[in-house]
Amino acid sequence: MLTFETSVFEREYITLADGREAIVRGGRHLFDRLPSAFEGVNQIAVIGWGPQGSAQAQNLRDSLAGKLKVVVGLRAGSGSREAARAAGFTEENGTLGEMFEVIAASDLVLLLISDAAQVELHEQIFAALRPGATLGLSHGFLLGFLDQQGARFPENIDVIAVCPKGMGASVRALYLQGAQTNGAGINASFAIEQDVSGRATERALGWSIGLGAPYTFQTTLRSEYLSDLTGERAILLGGVHGIVESLYRRFREQGLDETEAYRHSVDCVTGPISRTVSKEGLLGLYRRFDGEERTAFRRAYAAAYPVGLELVHEIYDEVASGNEIRSVILAGERLKRFGMGTIDGSPMWKAGEVARGTRDDEKLVLDPGTAGIFCGVMMAQIDTFFEKGHPYSEIANESVIEATDSLNPYMHARGVAFMVDNCSTTARLGSRKWAPRFDYLLTQVAYPALEDPRADLDLGLLTAFEEHPVHEVLRVCAQMRPSVDIFVE
Amino acid sequence: MLTFETSVFEREYITLADGREAIVRGGRHLFDRLPSAFEGVNQIAVIGWGPQGSAQAQNLRDSLAGKLKVVVGLRAGSGSREAARAAGFTEENGTLGEMFEVIAASDLVLLLISDAAQVELHEQIFAALRPGATLGLSHGFLLGFLDQQGARFPENIDVIAVCPKGMGASVRALYLQGAQTNGAGINASFAIEQDVSGRATERALGWSIGLGAPYTFQTTLRSEYLSDLTGERAILLGGVHGIVESLYRRFREQGLDETEAYRHSVDCVTGPISRTVSKEGLLGLYRRFDGEERTAFRRAYAAAYPVGLELVHEIYDEVASGNEIRSVILAGERLKRFGMGTIDGSPMWKAGEVARGTRDDEKLVLDPGTAGIFCGVMMAQIDTFFEKGHPYSEIANESVIEATDSLNPYMHARGVAFMVDNCSTTARLGSRKWAPRFDYLLTQVAYPALEDPRADLDLGLLTAFEEHPVHEVLRVCAQMRPSVDIFVE
Repeated sequence: MLTFETSVFEREYITLADGREAIVRGGRHLFDRLPSAFEGVNQIAVIGWGPQGSAQAQNLRDSLAGKLKVVVGLRAGSGSREAARAAGFTEENGTLGEMFEVIAASDLVLLLISDAAQVELHEQIFAALRPGATLGLSHGFLLGFLDQQGARFPENIDVIAVCPKGMGASVRALYLQGAQTNGAGINASFAIEQDVSGRATERALGWSIGLGAPYTFQTTLRSEYLSDLTGERAILLGGVHGIVESLYRRFREQGLDETEAYRHSVDCVTGPISRTVSKEGLLGLYRRFDGEERTAFRRAYAAAYPVGLELVHEIYDEVASGNEIRSVILAGERLKRFGMGTIDGSPMWKAGEVARGTRDDEKLVLDPGTAGIFCGVMMAQIDTFFEKGHPYSEIANESVIEATDSLNPYMHARGVAFMVDNCSTTARLGSRKWAPRFDYLLTQVAYPALEDPRADLDLGLLTAFEEHPVHEVLRVCAQMRPSVDIFVE
Repeated sequence: MLTFETSVFEREYITLADGREAIVRGGRHLFDRLPSAFEGVNQIAVIGWGPQGSAQAQNLRDSLAGKLKVVVGLRAGSGSREAARAAGFTEENGTLGEMFEVIAASDLVLLLISDAAQVELHEQIFAALRPGATLGLSHGFLLGFLDQQGARFPENIDVIAVCPKGMGASVRALYLQGAQTNGAGINASFAIEQDVSGRATERALGWSIGLGAPYTFQTTLRSEYLSDLTGERAILLGGVHGIVESLYRRFREQGLDETEAYRHSVDCVTGPISRTVSKEGLLGLYRRFDGEERTAFRRAYAAAYPVGLELVHEIYDEVASGNEIRSVILAGERLKRFGMGTIDGSPMWKAGEVARGTRDDEKLVLDPGTAGIFCGVMMAQIDTFFEKGHPYSEIANESVIEATDSLNPYMHARGVAFMVDNCSTTARLGSRKWAPRFDYLLTQVAYPALEDPRADLDLGLLTAFEEHPVHEVLRVCAQMRPSVDIFVE
């Protein structure tokens, strides 16, 4: 079991199913300890002003309340300069500068630029870091890239990661809610890859608590990127996209009009299914259904779970083998020539624009078949991660909580296509690659089985579902954050 | 420029567009030279009884007419034993045996087992080969695998390849037609990877002519597997599958009933489009359309070509980087657990079964929009291969002739889904991976552009199409084979 020591915060052990994990709870009452956690750090650099960069820079600045300077570093000529200035990071007050100058002047450097920029600039960044500085990452892509190259981090720095289990917009929005409801925020994992200062753990925990994480759990940087890249290719983004495309088409074939098909597929997944799982867990969703609806859920789950299991295993293999990271790097070269089109021009998403315009959230249907399909694929991801030995907290956050408390609410407000077209390049490439696979395999295998009354569906999968330890894990996780409305207007 | 020497056959130079290629024409009148080509070979082993193994063993046996023994080698307990016996390869007449015994007793060993079996057994096979023996391959997958492993072929053997540009069923069927029409057959490439005997080229040419190849052109084993794996993932199988799925859905959305949608998409591609291109080339197809139909072709071509170019480049990158071969190997492990479902259960292919039952080949429609989409993707593959420096013959055969003269006629008779579900595991995995990508990208990018009268379609692509050197290449290739009916009942 992973564990860690901290003298600044309180480490707790929580019982998750059949194991224990060492975690730290967050909350605004701990912000006065941040200077102790960051002892030896003269200033914190946040490099980049993407969704994570902008959210993290603002959260840390607000949490530190002037006790330690947070400086944003951007590339010369960056198009984000005005946005950073509007948020209060300015050259005049010494909190905005050219990235390499900021890196060279800081002891804790949070590198929140795109994966492509990390690949392009990592050697210059490594060279600019002070000896003994702490490099902070918010996911493990750079380690995966270095592994591919047979390269390593410089030996004379700390390398830590704090990985919020939600998109940047949620990291900021829930932090702000924390002013009214102490403890609101996005859970985060942390990882210590190198600790030459002996202060790496305190700094990582301080960073996470400063971001507003309700609770912070431990992982390794490798475990993080395996689950992060797999998760966004599966249920978090690629999987959910493929699921709703296939369901929409199926409802259309069954005779529903465009709006009704959209309600029963996309709106249902991103709205009532996600809300219910967020508040009542997966079993809570299941128990909403009785009689014929229960049967419909069970059959759909039994048809979708094997498809999901096969595909999530494939994705995991592709990530673990390095293929997926190589693909992202190769795509980076091609994008310079071909660009990347949007996915929102197809008839389904055009119909979705119309349907969202007339939506009444109070009246959305909770379709049991759609719920069964979605839960089947979600549980397949959970079981893949279990099988591969990931920590329970990572599994629950990367498979369920990030979906229901961050991404799906955002998709509900803005549309799945908008989400895919506006996320990180790595996630976007992954979603474009894997969504069609989920769509095709569900359409080829799962739905024909559902149409066929003689199909040999393995309903024993539902017994495994009902008895699954993840429900207890989700229950414990839910206790560690206050209930706030995570839905987006 | 690649070139070669032969004292047994006649090498010719043909002019293909702006270059020359050294080739050898085939024909039954050359069969009496085969013993000279195989000088030093005591017997030929054909290992495996899949589509290529069964076709090649029978063709070579028939061509050699008893002058040299062709022996089939199978794994102990192989399920193909009865089929080989029924074709006249028996233990009693000394032409059927256990594979390793047959390998050890032969000087020319044609290894026509599956890619997975090659990966699993290659070390044992290498150990069983006689020093100085010639190992023959029919595509380059094993070299790609060895490259991944940092391994090599044994140094004391010849390694040659003869790669028919068509499926096994066509290799046999067209060979049989050659009895009436001398020269009928499937073109083949050959490659010399290692030549310790000094006889490698003669043996490769003898093998190819013995199979009935109308003409044989030269490539390298690496060029072969790059184009072969890319081609089957793109226009030959994965691409055509994705194209027809997306077109079928589009025609359904436009209000056509299931059968009509099938006629305008699948039947049109595998029937009249393929026949026309086979007989009249791509320009011949284009010139079938006048007026509004010409405009429809041009707009469809201009919308599809960029999508095809982006995807074929992606596939090529994935193959060249080794990702695709690693994926196939990883899939081999997963298949032991998950198996592989068929694609034929989806509503479209169910409708296709019905539609094929009532089809009148004389009345099939040549839809100009469908033709434009198909040609756009095909030309994108051609241009990718041009850009990557493949020989013209390889480009034309791997992008056009194999499609129109072998695969599409077979799909026309049996269905695209049947084809995908019954081809080699490597091709099947590739098609399942890439077909959905073509479908999604056409649906997201190309079709919305076609619907939009203000879309900025680059009709200059049609000028490049009309002036493309591939048309001259196809014209020259067509002269080197007799016109026979390559369609399947």
